[in-house]
Amino acid sequence: MTQYRAPVRDMLFTLRAVGGLDEVAALPGNEEVSDDLIEAIFEEAAKFAGDVLAPLNQPGDKAGCVVKDGVVTTPDGVKSAFAAFCDNGWHAMPASAAWGGQGLPQLVNTPVIEMWTASNLAFSLCQMLTVGAISAIEHHGSATQKAIYLPKMTSGEWTGTMNLTEPQAGSDLAAVRTKAVPEGDHYRITGTKIFITWGEHDVAGNIIHLVLARLPDAPAGVKGISLFVVPKFLVNLDGSLGDRNDLVCASLEHKLGIHASPTAVMSFGEKGGAIGYLVGEANRGLEYMFTMMNHARFNVGLEGVAIAERAMQQAHRYALDRVQGRPLGCEAGKPIAYHPDVKRMLLDMKARVEGLRATAYFTAGRMDVAAKSPDPAIAKKAQALVDLLVPVVKGFSTESSVLIASTGVQVHGGMGFVEETGAAQHYRDARITPIYEGTTGIQANDFVGRKIARDGGAAAKTLIADFRAEVGDHAGLAAALNTFETVVGWIADAHAAHPERTAASAVAALTLAGIVVGACLLEKQARAAKARLDGGDSAVLTGKIAASAYYLAHVLPQVEGLALAITQGHEAINAFDPGAI
Amino acid sequence: MTQYRAPVRDMLFTLRAVGGLDEVAALPGNEEVSDDLIEAIFEEAAKFAGDVLAPLNQPGDKAGCVVKDGVVTTPDGVKSAFAAFCDNGWHAMPASAAWGGQGLPQLVNTPVIEMWTASNLAFSLCQMLTVGAISAIEHHGSATQKAIYLPKMTSGEWTGTMNLTEPQAGSDLAAVRTKAVPEGDHYRITGTKIFITWGEHDVAGNIIHLVLARLPDAPAGVKGISLFVVPKFLVNLDGSLGDRNDLVCASLEHKLGIHASPTAVMSFGEKGGAIGYLVGEANRGLEYMFTMMNHARFNVGLEGVAIAERAMQQAHRYALDRVQGRPLGCEAGKPIAYHPDVKRMLLDMKARVEGLRATAYFTAGRMDVAAKSPDPAIAKKAQALVDLLVPVVKGFSTESSVLIASTGVQVHGGMGFVEETGAAQHYRDARITPIYEGTTGIQANDFVGRKIARDGGAAAKTLIADFRAEVGDHAGLAAALNTFETVVGWIADAHAAHPERTAASAVAALTLAGIVVGACLLEKQARAAKARLDGGDSAVLTGKIAASAYYLAHVLPQVEGLALAITQGHEAINAFDPGAI
Repeated sequence: MTQYRAPVRDMLFTLRAVGGLDEVAALPGNEEVSDDLIEAIFEEAAKFAGDVLAPLNQPGDKAGCVVKDGVVTTPDGVKSAFAAFCDNGWHAMPASAAWGGQGLPQLVNTPVIEMWTASNLAFSLCQMLTVGAISAIEHHGSATQKAIYLPKMTSGEWTGTMNLTEPQAGSDLAAVRTKAVPEGDHYRITGTKIFITWGEHDVAGNIIHLVLARLPDAPAGVKGISLFVVPKFLVNLDGSLGDRNDLVCASLEHKLGIHASPTAVMSFGEKGGAIGYLVGEANRGLEYMFTMMNHARFNVGLEGVAIAERAMQQAHRYALDRVQGRPLGCEAGKPIAYHPDVKRMLLDMKARVEGLRATAYFTAGRMDVAAKSPDPAIAKKAQALVDLLVPVVKGFSTESSVLIASTGVQVHGGMGFVEETGAAQHYRDARITPIYEGTTGIQANDFVGRKIARDGGAAAKTLIADFRAEVGDHAGLAAALNTFETVVGWIADAHAAHPERTAASAVAALTLAGIVVGACLLEKQARAAKARLDGGDSAVLTGKIAASAYYLAHVLPQVEGLALAITQGHEAINAFDPGAI
Repeated sequence: MTQYRAPVRDMLFTLRAVGGLDEVAALPGNEEVSDDLIEAIFEEAAKFAGDVLAPLNQPGDKAGCVVKDGVVTTPDGVKSAFAAFCDNGWHAMPASAAWGGQGLPQLVNTPVIEMWTASNLAFSLCQMLTVGAISAIEHHGSATQKAIYLPKMTSGEWTGTMNLTEPQAGSDLAAVRTKAVPEGDHYRITGTKIFITWGEHDVAGNIIHLVLARLPDAPAGVKGISLFVVPKFLVNLDGSLGDRNDLVCASLEHKLGIHASPTAVMSFGEKGGAIGYLVGEANRGLEYMFTMMNHARFNVGLEGVAIAERAMQQAHRYALDRVQGRPLGCEAGKPIAYHPDVKRMLLDMKARVEGLRATAYFTAGRMDVAAKSPDPAIAKKAQALVDLLVPVVKGFSTESSVLIASTGVQVHGGMGFVEETGAAQHYRDARITPIYEGTTGIQANDFVGRKIARDGGAAAKTLIADFRAEVGDHAGLAAALNTFETVVGWIADAHAAHPERTAASAVAALTLAGIVVGACLLEKQARAAKARLDGGDSAVLTGKIAASAYYLAHVLPQVEGLALAITQGHEAINAFDPGAI
């Protein structure tokens, strides 16, 4: 059985050292946020994650979900775990207090969501999608829609989905074809949606589908897409369940990973049209989706952190247990963790995970400041940093998670290739994260186009200036920050006249940003750790110093090569004709 | 169905431009090697690979092998494909003419083996292991053993295996415990071996196991291990099959990939001892294994090239077919291959594959020169280059194949995560290659210790000098060659006094070498292509130029950062105590 123990001490350290916990706790409305409260929540969540969700991860992968005549059965244990998850209030926790949630800061929710995701990625997706659907209704739905759907979706009695993708409309939602025809106070929805995560299952009484579709008179393209609520069971005005709606799970995908998460093909309106209700105004569906994008992309970025942590724990435990050969300079019987190259792999995983976590928590803290700071200038600056960093958290964490999970397999040697060991599942599961909720290429184009070029690099330069003030006395970081600034300037200058150049260099630019931000935050953590070394939790503090030393010596030096590729490598890409070879 | 078309024109170009085909064809004993012969062989092999083996790759992955009461059934179609493979002479081809093979140069065999591996990695392993077993018997067996086993193993009537690993003896074969007790003219073998590739199956009439075991009076450690032939069915003196030997497939591993390759747990001697015959002298088994190591490791490195090529073809075909969004600067309807970031991914895959192939073919050519050159100085130099480059081919090609297969999934977007598409299989299959036949860490330690430090960096400096003479007028390559030389000097200086430093930096050093060698050979190819651009196959030649331009602009710049990590990053690794966090 593969284990997971949430790194609670590490999470708390990161919240404090780089997440801006004190600043967030001082925001209006966060009066209840105290160290004691946070620690208590984290300890309880860690127990649920480690004791209930983690043990289901491997069996769920092995069993997968089964569909028969439109009825989906989740693997053994998932249904009861979901019930316990809801009963203990974990499902409701991230929602706002108005609907039964706890209304805690994003910074406090983030490590808890990390725990669910690390312990059982497939399971965690059900809540994640539901929270997204809640958010859409909360921001854009009518008062009646909110009253009908949100309390039960918050508690987990009902779950939610996002029905965006169609076979011909993946990354390009402008191509959505699903139709919505008005009929009295509702609409009739007809069409096929694919890749619908938790689109059909047996863990909740109703499933509230949010569906993008076109009205008959809608303009072509992205400005003709509307958003609808389409419940699996229609809901009576008193909140009780009515008729089954005309929608069905046509099939489930056979996927590389996250087997316990049912990925459905959803067929709407085979019997004349599913009943749906317009959310907000017509033709503004895509715009509504975009308002939730930062949170959704951030959450997938967090999946990268989480699965990388899980893979690291698995490798670390195996390497401390397995004895093979006598490690250099050690007595016989020392485990393989002490072979220099295995040590390197473990430290590489650790340093990268902690760099990703620091970046995610830093961003989460800025989300809270942006949302609640009474000082508009501070809120605006925080929002600019959030907008800048969300594609980095999404793109860089997820790409890194694939690399880290692969290293995790490697640490196991031949056993890593055997499924029973568990390392391979993380390698399979991680692979979806750089794809869904916008591929890395899409994140990177957002990063260079909307987040850097649009404001002439202002937000990026603010971040660079802040880091310079904090850790700019480190020669390597000072040089890397200068290089980052040069790249930002190059993007701002090149983008309007030569968008094909910045597009070709976008992923490298996002990678460079991910490395530099991670390095600065790790160094900041190492300094905080050194200052507290005598007093704090010595394993965490020693670990922080080791992670930073490694990252700055091994990962940060990639920055100069990336900058060269960014500023001088676009020509080789743009000259290439893939159809001519 | 996923396709594979062997890149025959590309292979021929590479053989000529960097493989040293003319030099190899001029070696004594290679009189029959002509352009016509090679092209004819490659075209025929390409047909068999594309038409017979490739279509079995995905169904074989899905079905996997099944074991029941020690009897293994391979997926549908594998048995008849293996029979056709033997009937057409492909199984025998790489063996020496003395036993029915063709005795062609390694350089000519290499692209053909690449085709088998690319079209069906799981299938190809049966021949690869058999060729290894043939080689062991050929070099170290008695005349009788050769006469009994080699003709039938060459034809494929019988196959061979290598039984090295035991649960407690993976990378450390010194820990082998399997026992061999003398009994008349043979021995009784008792013990359990794991990870035995094609250890049991239904495609051939007999399986000739080569087994490492210890004699009762053997010294401890690596100098007490002997090599035995242990056939599944005993062989009568007339060559007919006798009794079933006392060995059985106890189970098959449930693996991440290569599902159609049965990976057996083999149990020897449950009924008193399997009958085995000593190969060569007692206690020299490990030494015998090491004599075949260069070829075995080279072949696994070639698997990295092959699977990366297959993943690239799959991604390339998908990206030229799939339409989604309007690529920047293109008319509507252009496929996703023309989005700049997708173009980048396709070109990244292509450039890396071709860099790996060039390095492998260059090394293959040197193997032939080392084996057959009448000039001892030339042969010696070639052997030194082979010894230097084999761990690079093995370690860097296989690690790169994981990265390339991952990019292949990414090119597909959400469809890449769906198993039916086929991209995910390459991502799963590739993951074994950096593990078996010596992990990347083991290759890297061999590279820095035996291949660089032992001769004070002489072989590496020879290679650097050759490249400098050929492509040193390119500023980027000149700088990279200087950096490589500095790193070689640092390794040679540091290794004896501080082996923990070179061990910690070993994988980075191997990676650096892989990049620099690949870059020099790609540039050499691009120059050859430019010289022939008007006359040759323009798609291949244009592709060579594009690949080199990309590699030099995007991959080569990593070298300086790696050099910094190598020479200055060991301290961070060695200071880390994985047991203290």
